Amino acid sequence: MKTAIFGFCMACLIAAAAMTGRGEEAQAQKPPTTAEILAAAKPEDWRALDPENTLYVELASGRVVVELAPAFAPLHAANVKALARERYYDGLAIMRVQDNYVAQWGDPNAEDAEKARRIRNARKSLPPEFDRAIDAKAPFTPLPDGDVYAAEVGYSDGFPAARDRRSGRMWLVHCYGMVGAGRGDTPDSGSGAEIYAVIGHAPRHLDRNVTLFGRVIQGMELLSSLPRLSGPMGFYEKPEQLISIRSIRVAADVHPEERSDLEVMRTDTAAFRELIEARRQRSEEWFLFKPGRVELCNVPVPVRKKSPPQAN
Amino acid sequence: MKTAIFGFCMACLIAAAAMTGRGEEAQAQKPPTTAEILAAAKPEDWRALDPENTLYVELASGRVVVELAPAFAPLHAANVKALARERYYDGLAIMRVQDNYVAQWGDPNAEDAEKARRIRNARKSLPPEFDRAIDAKAPFTPLPDGDVYAAEVGYSDGFPAARDRRSGRMWLVHCYGMVGAGRGDTPDSGSGAEIYAVIGHAPRHLDRNVTLFGRVIQGMELLSSLPRLSGPMGFYEKPEQLISIRSIRVAADVHPEERSDLEVMRTDTAAFRELIEARRQRSEEWFLFKPGRVELCNVPVPVRKKSPPQAN
Repeated sequence: MKTAIFGFCMACLIAAAAMTGRGEEAQAQKPPTTAEILAAAKPEDWRALDPENTLYVELASGRVVVELAPAFAPLHAANVKALARERYYDGLAIMRVQDNYVAQWGDPNAEDAEKARRIRNARKSLPPEFDRAIDAKAPFTPLPDGDVYAAEVGYSDGFPAARDRRSGRMWLVHCYGMVGAGRGDTPDSGSGAEIYAVIGHAPRHLDRNVTLFGRVIQGMELLSSLPRLSGPMGFYEKPEQLISIRSIRVAADVHPEERSDLEVMRTDTAAFRELIEARRQRSEEWFLFKPGRVELCNVPVPVRKKSPPQAN
Repeated sequence: MKTAIFGFCMACLIAAAAMTGRGEEAQAQKPPTTAEILAAAKPEDWRALDPENTLYVELASGRVVVELAPAFAPLHAANVKALARERYYDGLAIMRVQDNYVAQWGDPNAEDAEKARRIRNARKSLPPEFDRAIDAKAPFTPLPDGDVYAAEVGYSDGFPAARDRRSGRMWLVHCYGMVGAGRGDTPDSGSGAEIYAVIGHAPRHLDRNVTLFGRVIQGMELLSSLPRLSGPMGFYEKPEQLISIRSIRVAADVHPEERSDLEVMRTDTAAFRELIEARRQRSEEWFLFKPGRVELCNVPVPVRKKSPPQAN
């Protein structure tokens, strides 16, 4: 079988075939593929990002779009917006890129009282928001195949989450692209002034140890492809290794024409439950062994450009 | 507490503190940290790489060192060495970099009969080596906390592996840094002429679907930090996006002075079992919540420069 789309070897179509799907070959009796589910999804299976809960991290290489999770971390989401609105982050830097772990940004001079960027209106520290109570305000679409770390895992309004019904608590999970607030040794030493994003295999041991407050929706590759920095734990050693943050803005504060109009697939729908099933069954022809199971961080929530309004 | 080592904010010491460990603060009654275990490891807890089972992938940016796994994929390990020895790979290219997935290299012209690089002595296709029989030749250090995909997971001679005693089979697992042979739709369409390495969250749905034959031991960041390519599934769209492979050599064929002398921690020792425990318990002070569990791909096998011979 030729793969005219790439113009070269069939072997190029390794593993990832399923990422775009080859649904046209699927038989009627097979479970639908990811590609088929996305093609069949209705407008109501998608939701637009709320500009008031969206951050734009502007780098020289482009824009990283972060969706905030106030349902899990209301204080951190509010404080990060307050910091963005007082222009705290503008001109600061990515100062840590540790392979298979995190990219992290903030004020390289934060410990130097003379040089440190001043926080004016936002809070300098916050109580931790490592977990929250399970309640009706936090929807939860469970995954059926268990988890190494948590009693139950699934998706809550687009975010990977875990919960424990015995303790009545739920929390966000460190999958690829999740965004959190760096902290020191004490639980209340984070504020959102220093932010990290997961750029490697899910470091699940961080769950409930740090406040996660968002997820990268677009531009992840601008963080994940950064050169790894040479200091211990991937911190910078020389100032020239710092990668400048041009600005961080709340999308609501950006002119509508300059916003990234994105939609995220809803995770409380039949379509998303079908997508979970597609990731479990892998009915694409390429898969000789059908895993029949799926792990939380292997169900990326689809994102797309906002579709234009439909004609009547 | 100041973190003089970085000269700035305590918050910089987020999550990853455990990666280098802060064992000096651990109390005697606490389980040892990763750092303490590494410091206490004896020379016999480490093994040198076998030059006959080590590949050097030479890029303009540096060397990627791959340890082969002939215990799991003898045909693929042998064929990749044969390809390297006939200089098949030299001047070929990395032609796919898909975010949170794989970097992949081989012949961009493989499908063009006129331009394709000729394979002279090596085999052009191989039977799959997706799994193997459980037997005494494959050691296995199990992890205690279960797995979403497999009945049992652990480490076999440095490689992350899974096994199923009911079927009597075991197989290598797609953790970060694992290296496999791209294939087409048929199980025997891979040969090692096209190779991929995992650069993101473990794509475990590929387990038993592709032949894994090695693991990146050093230089992973040279692959993971590559710019993501813009075509479908991260393939290149324009020839200028190709990243040249200068050469791939078997370490045994490289002058001893030009070899990367590395040692890998043995995974069949008490020291490695302690390291698994350290990753589960996280007794470092920073961890407010001790996970008490660990997932296979979150136990990276330590690598170090070969220690100089000890004086008597």
